[in-house]
Amino acid sequence: MTEEHRTDDTRERPSANIERIHQLVETLMPAAAAIMTGATQLDDPAQQAALAELNTNLVELHPADVADILESLPQEERMLVWHLAVPEEDGEVLLEVSDAVRESLIGMMDQEEMLAAVDDLDADELAELADDLPREVVHEALSTRDAEERAQIQAAMSYEDNQVGAIMDFEMLDIRADVTCEVVLRYLRRFDRLPDHTDKIFVTDEDDVLRGVLLLRKLLVSAPDKCVEDIMIKDVVLFHPEDDVEDAAQAFERYDLVTAPVVDANRKLIGRITIDEIVDVIREESDADMLNMAGLQEEEDLFAPVLDSVKNRWMWLAINLCTAFFASRVIGAFEGSIEKIVALATLMPIVAGIGGNSGNQTITMIVRALAMGQLSTAQAGKLLRKEIGVALVNGLLWGSVMGLASWLLYDNIGIGFVMVAAMTLNLLLAATVGVLIPVIMEKTGRDPALGSSVLITAVTDSGGFFIFLGLATLFLL
Amino acid sequence: MTEEHRTDDTRERPSANIERIHQLVETLMPAAAAIMTGATQLDDPAQQAALAELNTNLVELHPADVADILESLPQEERMLVWHLAVPEEDGEVLLEVSDAVRESLIGMMDQEEMLAAVDDLDADELAELADDLPREVVHEALSTRDAEERAQIQAAMSYEDNQVGAIMDFEMLDIRADVTCEVVLRYLRRFDRLPDHTDKIFVTDEDDVLRGVLLLRKLLVSAPDKCVEDIMIKDVVLFHPEDDVEDAAQAFERYDLVTAPVVDANRKLIGRITIDEIVDVIREESDADMLNMAGLQEEEDLFAPVLDSVKNRWMWLAINLCTAFFASRVIGAFEGSIEKIVALATLMPIVAGIGGNSGNQTITMIVRALAMGQLSTAQAGKLLRKEIGVALVNGLLWGSVMGLASWLLYDNIGIGFVMVAAMTLNLLLAATVGVLIPVIMEKTGRDPALGSSVLITAVTDSGGFFIFLGLATLFLL
Repeated sequence: MTEEHRTDDTRERPSANIERIHQLVETLMPAAAAIMTGATQLDDPAQQAALAELNTNLVELHPADVADILESLPQEERMLVWHLAVPEEDGEVLLEVSDAVRESLIGMMDQEEMLAAVDDLDADELAELADDLPREVVHEALSTRDAEERAQIQAAMSYEDNQVGAIMDFEMLDIRADVTCEVVLRYLRRFDRLPDHTDKIFVTDEDDVLRGVLLLRKLLVSAPDKCVEDIMIKDVVLFHPEDDVEDAAQAFERYDLVTAPVVDANRKLIGRITIDEIVDVIREESDADMLNMAGLQEEEDLFAPVLDSVKNRWMWLAINLCTAFFASRVIGAFEGSIEKIVALATLMPIVAGIGGNSGNQTITMIVRALAMGQLSTAQAGKLLRKEIGVALVNGLLWGSVMGLASWLLYDNIGIGFVMVAAMTLNLLLAATVGVLIPVIMEKTGRDPALGSSVLITAVTDSGGFFIFLGLATLFLL
Repeated sequence: MTEEHRTDDTRERPSANIERIHQLVETLMPAAAAIMTGATQLDDPAQQAALAELNTNLVELHPADVADILESLPQEERMLVWHLAVPEEDGEVLLEVSDAVRESLIGMMDQEEMLAAVDDLDADELAELADDLPREVVHEALSTRDAEERAQIQAAMSYEDNQVGAIMDFEMLDIRADVTCEVVLRYLRRFDRLPDHTDKIFVTDEDDVLRGVLLLRKLLVSAPDKCVEDIMIKDVVLFHPEDDVEDAAQAFERYDLVTAPVVDANRKLIGRITIDEIVDVIREESDADMLNMAGLQEEEDLFAPVLDSVKNRWMWLAINLCTAFFASRVIGAFEGSIEKIVALATLMPIVAGIGGNSGNQTITMIVRALAMGQLSTAQAGKLLRKEIGVALVNGLLWGSVMGLASWLLYDNIGIGFVMVAAMTLNLLLAATVGVLIPVIMEKTGRDPALGSSVLITAVTDSGGFFIFLGLATLFLL
C-alpha cells in the first residue's frame, strides 16, 4: 500500500448514498455497452450527467463503500460499476467484498488488471486474495516482491482460514528493552507513518524473541529518561499462528485489545493481529451461524446466477426432503387410522409445528451460548432438566388450549385428550433433542450451528406425527 | 475506576478454565450454605482445597471471565460464586454479564453492596447499570459524584439503548490547534494515564467546538516544532448522540476506527465512542437477529427459572399455534378429499416442509443483507425475479423426484403430477414471500428479523396444504 493511498487518515470520505447510486446506474444501463468499450462521451445529456456524477462518487467513496455498492447490484450493473471504479483501489475493494462477489469481479478482469490491483497490497492482503486469483497471477505478483515479503506471503497462505496465521499482518514496530523513552520517541520520528491501529510497540531481544509490549499510551505519559524495561507490559496476551481465530476474537473482546503480537513456538515475533480483522471475524462468525442454521452452505452473492444459488442450497433442501419423506412414511403407517378418523390428518400438523417452533427456540439459545463459550458440555444435564421443565409447562398450557379447541371442533373429548398428551410429549421431545443435538455436535468437534434447524424440525415432525397418530390409534379406535 | 484497578494493562490474567471451575463449584455446593454465611474454614479437606483454589481463580481472573463463569452456572451455583467473587470487581462484572444474568445478580445484593459495586465506575458505566438498579441506589450513588459527572450520567441515561449517547464515554483528551507537537507531548506527560483505547486526541477551540483530531500515530512521527493545525485531520468521522448505534458500528467497521468523537448540534465535543463498545454492539446485533428469527424475545439467561423462560418464549409459540391452527383449518376444508384419497394426508407435509425450508433460506439471506446495508428496497424486484428462478429450478427438480416417488408408492400417476405441481407452486410462494416479508418490514421501519422464520413457515404451511389439497381435489376426484 502506498503512503499516499493510506492518507485516508486525513479526510473523511462521504458515506455512500446507495439509493442514488442505483438510480444513476439505472440511467446508465442503456449505454452500458458503449461505456464498457471505453466511451466517455455519451449522446444523451442525462446519461452524460449521470456518468459524471457516478464517476465523482466512485472517486470519493471509501473502497469499503464501493464494495457495498458492488454487493448490492445485479451482475450486469455490477460489471458497469466495476469498470468505472478507480483502478488504484481495485485491490482494496476486492479485499472488502464477500467471497462470492470477489469471484464474480475477478472473473471480469484480465491478467494485467489483476496484477495492477494487487501491486499496492501489503503481504498479508495479497495472501488473502491469493486463493481466488489464477496461479500465474499469484506467481507473477510474488516475483515483484522482495524475499522477506515473499516469505511472509507464503507463510500466511499456508494457514487455514480459521487460523490466526491467516489474518495476521507483518507491519510491526519493534524496539529493545534497554533504551529510554526519549530514544523510542526519536526512533519513531524517523518513520513517515506508523502502521494502522498501532497502539503498542513490541519489545524484542536480539533474537526477535518477544519480551513485552510498550503501550503508546504509556510511552506518552512517561518521563523521557524512563527505560522501556520499566514501563513495558511483560505478561502479554499473545497468539500463535495456529490458534483458532474465534478464540482470538474472544480474547480481543474480553481484554479490549486493539492489536496483539503473534509469536512462533520459540516466542519469536512473527506478526500481529489488529482489531479490524477481529471485527470481520466476529461478523463472519455470527453470519455463518445464522446461515448454517437456516441450511445455507455459505454466504451467497445476493444476485448470484440462479444455478450458483441452487448449488449453494441444494444440499440442505435434499436433506430436508429426505427427512420430510421419512415423516411422510410415518404418517403412511397410520393411513388406516386416518381413514377412520379424518380429523387426525387435520390436527397432526399442529402437533408437529409447535414442536418444531419450540425446538428451534431451544437450539438457537444453546448454539449461541456455545459460540460464546458460556456453556460447558458438562452442564448439559442441568440445562436439559430446565428445558424439560419449560416444555412441560408449555405443553400442558398450549396443549390444553388446543385440546379444548379440538374437542369443541370435533365434539369428541377423546381427540381433545390425545391432543394434550401428544403436544406435551412432542414438546418434551423437542426440548431433549434441542439440547442434545448442539451439545453432541460440540463434543464431537463439529459446528453446532450446522443445519441444526433442519435437524430439529426433522425430529419434531416425524416424532410429532408418530406420537399423535400412535396415541390416537391406541385410544380412539 | 481507580488508577490501581486499571493496571490490567501491565499483566495478563490467565484465561478461565471453565470446566475446572465447574468441578470446584460442584465440590463446594454441599457446603454452600456454610460458605454463604461467612464460613472460611470447612471441615472437609477436599472442600477446603476447592475453596482455596476457587478463591485464587476468582482473584486472578479478569472480570469478563468471571462474568462468563456466572453466565454458565445454574442459579444456586451462581449465587455461591457471586458471593466469593472479589467485591472490588463487582461493578465491572455487572457491566459484562447479559441483562438477564445482571438482574439475577443484583437481586442477590443488598443496598450497601450495590453502592460499593458502583462506587468505582466511570460516569458512562454507572449510567449503563442505572436502569437495573433500585432508584434509591442510583440516587445515593449520584450524590457522591461531582456536578459534572452527575450531568454526564443523567445525559447518558436520557438516551435509548440503540442511540450513540447510550454507549459514549466522557474520558476525552482535548488540545488546541495552535500549539506545537512538543507542547502536546509535554501536556500528555502530565497525566498518570491516558484513557483506554486513546488513538487520537480531539482538537477543540475555546468553546469546545471540535476542529479536528490528532492521531497519536501522527503525533509520534511529526517533528516537535510542527503545529497541531498542520497535522490534524479536519474532516472527522463524528457522531451525534441521537445517531443509531448500528450505523456507528458500520462506520467503525468501514473506516477501521478505534475511537470517534461525539458532538452536539453545534459541533461541541460531548463524548467519544470506543471500539470495545462497538464490538459489543456488533455481537448483540447479530445475536438479536438470530434470536428474533427463531422467535425468542430477548437474550435469555441459560439457567433462568422455568417460568422466566416460558415468559420469554410464549408469544411466538402462541403466534405459531395460531398459524398452525389456521393451517389445520385449511386441511379441515379438504377433509372430504382426504377421506377419499388418504394418501393426500401422507404426502401433504412434504409439500409444506420443503416450502418452509426453502423460504427460510431466502429470508435468512435477505435479513442478513439488509442488516449489512447491502440491499436497497428498490432492488427487491430484481431479487424477487432471481429467487423465483431458483424456486422454479428447485421445484421442478425436487418436485419431479418426489412426484416419481409418489407415483411408484401409490401406483397413481395423477398423484405424481399433482405432487410436482404443488411443490413447484409452494416453492414459488416461499420465494415470493421470503423476499417480500423482510423488504416490507424494512420499508415500514420494523426489524426484518423479527419472527421472520415463524411468519414464513406459517405462509408455506397453509399455502402448501391449500395448493396440494386444492390441486388434488380439482384433478384427482
